[in-house]
Amino acid sequence: MKIYDREGTPNAARIRIVLAEKGLEDQIEFVSVDLIRAEQKQPAFLAMNPIGKIPVLELDDGTVISESTAITEYLDNLDGNPTLTGKTPREKGLIHMMQRRVEMMVLEAIDDYFHYGTPGLGKALRPWRMPDWSGAKEWGERRGAQAVQNMPYFNDILAKKPFVAGDAFSLADISLWAALAFADAIGLPIAPELTALAAWRSKVSDIPAVKNRSGQAILPEDLARFGA
Amino acid sequence: MKIYDREGTPNAARIRIVLAEKGLEDQIEFVSVDLIRAEQKQPAFLAMNPIGKIPVLELDDGTVISESTAITEYLDNLDGNPTLTGKTPREKGLIHMMQRRVEMMVLEAIDDYFHYGTPGLGKALRPWRMPDWSGAKEWGERRGAQAVQNMPYFNDILAKKPFVAGDAFSLADISLWAALAFADAIGLPIAPELTALAAWRSKVSDIPAVKNRSGQAILPEDLARFGA
Repeated sequence: MKIYDREGTPNAARIRIVLAEKGLEDQIEFVSVDLIRAEQKQPAFLAMNPIGKIPVLELDDGTVISESTAITEYLDNLDGNPTLTGKTPREKGLIHMMQRRVEMMVLEAIDDYFHYGTPGLGKALRPWRMPDWSGAKEWGERRGAQAVQNMPYFNDILAKKPFVAGDAFSLADISLWAALAFADAIGLPIAPELTALAAWRSKVSDIPAVKNRSGQAILPEDLARFGA
Repeated sequence: MKIYDREGTPNAARIRIVLAEKGLEDQIEFVSVDLIRAEQKQPAFLAMNPIGKIPVLELDDGTVISESTAITEYLDNLDGNPTLTGKTPREKGLIHMMQRRVEMMVLEAIDDYFHYGTPGLGKALRPWRMPDWSGAKEWGERRGAQAVQNMPYFNDILAKKPFVAGDAFSLADISLWAALAFADAIGLPIAPELTALAAWRSKVSDIPAVKNRSGQAILPEDLARFGA
């Protein structure tokens, strides 16, 4: 199998954590996508994923699977023991609910802030950032504010439960961990009063599959290189 | 089980089609949410779903599951025969990928157009429509244009395959059918040249679980009542 991604970005981190957690890393050939040159917006990449975002999984028969949730569903079910996406109907429902809440309330908002409210990944991507619209930057800034506003919701959840979707580490934790690493790197840190969220992040950062990724989370100097 | 929703809206239709397809309709008590009075944005509803959107499923033990994909995962797996969300890892991956593409490329864009680019559901919901921002309406209009721009992608898919995620009717078809019913009702019809998309819609509309819903899809006069 091949993964088309770019180390150090939040969605690449999500899938690399899944691969490590499921013991599948050695079955993957990683193909680096040149985000700075907007390779993900060119015809060859768009033929795999019309949304123009990494990561993309390509199976040995050429089948392509994009979208982090979909790739995780595939990888997590390969061994018949879906620990990250849920075994019972109730687990599946709650994990998918919380993972989607993470995306809608935090991860997508942070991503919009990065791409529209800041210089984002630099010059080559500008044509895909609504350059014909003067309101785009304010919209991006509003999305960043929404992400910050929504962080306390997850703090409250994690003050009562050990993990985002309940008692066990799941896809929902991976999404939130990647979202917060991204937020931190682009200047939207966890507010000091959100102690349960910070404690959960520290705990998740110690899980072996995540620990191996921590050093690869987006760092400000990495972003600076991107924007160069 | 209880479903909190409002007949005639796209996300309510998605779950009602799932319930009919899985033969679960008689196990559900439907609780109507007064969207015109913004009941979905009040504390009692937000305690179930912080995103403030219908539908929400409440299990008999009080557990709440929101988000259409999550509710579908729960309902589809109850009988151990997940026909709508996929049985094999490959099916699960491809169905989740295509359903997410439908949401990102069409359904969410149409929803944003309706709520920001048009009068939407009327006066009571205005406080939740970024009233402090003069750019909100243009953003909504841009989202509507994106939805229309993305429809040909699904036409091309359906010119080659019988259903959105391949050979069988799935969650991805339900999402696209609901999106197009919504789009039609608010003035974004399928363009005449998208003949494969129109043929697929006609075929899906004849599936018994969908046929029973067709009369309940959002109609312009229904929207006029909403906005009254």
